[in-house]
Amino acid sequence: MRLATFAQQGGQRVGVVLNDEIADVTSVAPTMQAFVEGGDAMMARVKAALDKAPRVKLDQVKLLAPFPRPAKNVLCLGLNYTEHVAEGARIGVRVDDNLPKYPVWFTKAVTAVCGPYDDIEIEPAISTSYDWEVELMVVIGKTGRHISKEKAFDYVHSYTVFNDFSVRDVQRRHGPPPQWFKGKSYDKASPMGPWIVTKDEIGTPPNIRISCRVNGVTKQESTTDLMIFDIPTAIADISDMITLEPGDVIATGTPSGVGVARSPAEFLKAGDVMETEIEKIGLLRNRIVEKR
Amino acid sequence: MRLATFAQQGGQRVGVVLNDEIADVTSVAPTMQAFVEGGDAMMARVKAALDKAPRVKLDQVKLLAPFPRPAKNVLCLGLNYTEHVAEGARIGVRVDDNLPKYPVWFTKAVTAVCGPYDDIEIEPAISTSYDWEVELMVVIGKTGRHISKEKAFDYVHSYTVFNDFSVRDVQRRHGPPPQWFKGKSYDKASPMGPWIVTKDEIGTPPNIRISCRVNGVTKQESTTDLMIFDIPTAIADISDMITLEPGDVIATGTPSGVGVARSPAEFLKAGDVMETEIEKIGLLRNRIVEKR
Repeated sequence: MRLATFAQQGGQRVGVVLNDEIADVTSVAPTMQAFVEGGDAMMARVKAALDKAPRVKLDQVKLLAPFPRPAKNVLCLGLNYTEHVAEGARIGVRVDDNLPKYPVWFTKAVTAVCGPYDDIEIEPAISTSYDWEVELMVVIGKTGRHISKEKAFDYVHSYTVFNDFSVRDVQRRHGPPPQWFKGKSYDKASPMGPWIVTKDEIGTPPNIRISCRVNGVTKQESTTDLMIFDIPTAIADISDMITLEPGDVIATGTPSGVGVARSPAEFLKAGDVMETEIEKIGLLRNRIVEKR
Repeated sequence: MRLATFAQQGGQRVGVVLNDEIADVTSVAPTMQAFVEGGDAMMARVKAALDKAPRVKLDQVKLLAPFPRPAKNVLCLGLNYTEHVAEGARIGVRVDDNLPKYPVWFTKAVTAVCGPYDDIEIEPAISTSYDWEVELMVVIGKTGRHISKEKAFDYVHSYTVFNDFSVRDVQRRHGPPPQWFKGKSYDKASPMGPWIVTKDEIGTPPNIRISCRVNGVTKQESTTDLMIFDIPTAIADISDMITLEPGDVIATGTPSGVGVARSPAEFLKAGDVMETEIEKIGLLRNRIVEKR
């Protein structure tokens, strides 16, 4: 099942995406957070409500991020694809023994999230190193602590597409050791969506193509089986100290091809179109504009 | 004015602390978040309601963290006192040119917060390096972006006491560069409170004594005028990229005397009592117990 959050008549609504239509199930699932918290019972109620749910054409509504404002910061994994670690090493991100020994966790502010087709406003006065990062995002469905690798997928509710938009000079300077939070949290610039797709449609574990294009040129292209720390390992690792809860979202890291590691480095500028795509889920398309 | 969140009859309530009593103003301010969001008008309504508010003895209620679950991760400053940077350097935390050039921002999960007198459950199987960090916490009162240093205190609503409880081995290993989020986010172990104190009672800028004791022995003792990046600088720095909102809480960094930097290193163990105190605000007292 695919579910989207969309704007209509000034309010936020939740709908099931069915080909080119969206079936409004807000009366059953008032928010995406409520949908996820409701678990299997909610899923059954939404399915039962589908026949009579009012439908609108998908292109007639404005899609928002599935979680327009997550209940807590976005959990992010850094350095989680081998080729991305290697390209980082070439520009000075030092990793002992070549690969990280433990998952590299940081967070992104809830205010950093934007919709799947929103314009992204950059401010050249703050930085000129705005960069892209396609990532598969995992949506947690159940509360858990000390979750074993074997049980980890029981805690996964669904998946969505995420771009871990990054401001490189800021990411690198607030340390030492540099803490990435600020450079990863630029306002309303990290698109999520266009909808969540429940795990039954993706396969377990997910083995799907992920890519990022700028102005139609492919910059990143990989598959999710190449993660260094796979989804069960990541869930087991973080939950040994931190309780995971329904609606928590985990960005699972980006493959190689980011702008900062290119030779010469490439960054986003006004007029660029950034496309972030994941097989079986969908496509984010965001235009970069200069903030006025 | 001092306001606390407390538990009564299974629910959360908000009260004004008046000497040894608490005046229940939940009918006006249903949550601390609502109180802060309400701004000056809310403050006036609470004052007007005080005379008729039901009162209970402070020692008859269970105080919770003022924000039992902040609306987003706790914003934290690292390496923000010169002597703490120096003690860090002695154990290998390298800082170019001796002091950080930019504020060092990271976050702590909302699930890491606990109440002012709660027991803190440690798990020796996860780590044996649980450590203390007294910090002055700033509560943001207004939404703002690109806040100037000159206007920064207009965005400060109140202050409270915070202990940025840290798990040192975990804090250091999830990199490189080590990202501190996970080691700073151990479940229900970072006490906050015992109440917020509005800024008019603290003075601007705050110049107050902060200290931490373990089993009655003073481990940290300093004053808030010794911050490397003062409150206006920190607010201006973070808000150049990230929108600050009412109820955002900023932990402003810890002075020297943390356990990990002692010779030999000292860490918290079951049976210890950790006291975290800030002049003009109050005292947190937490017993360390082993999780069963």
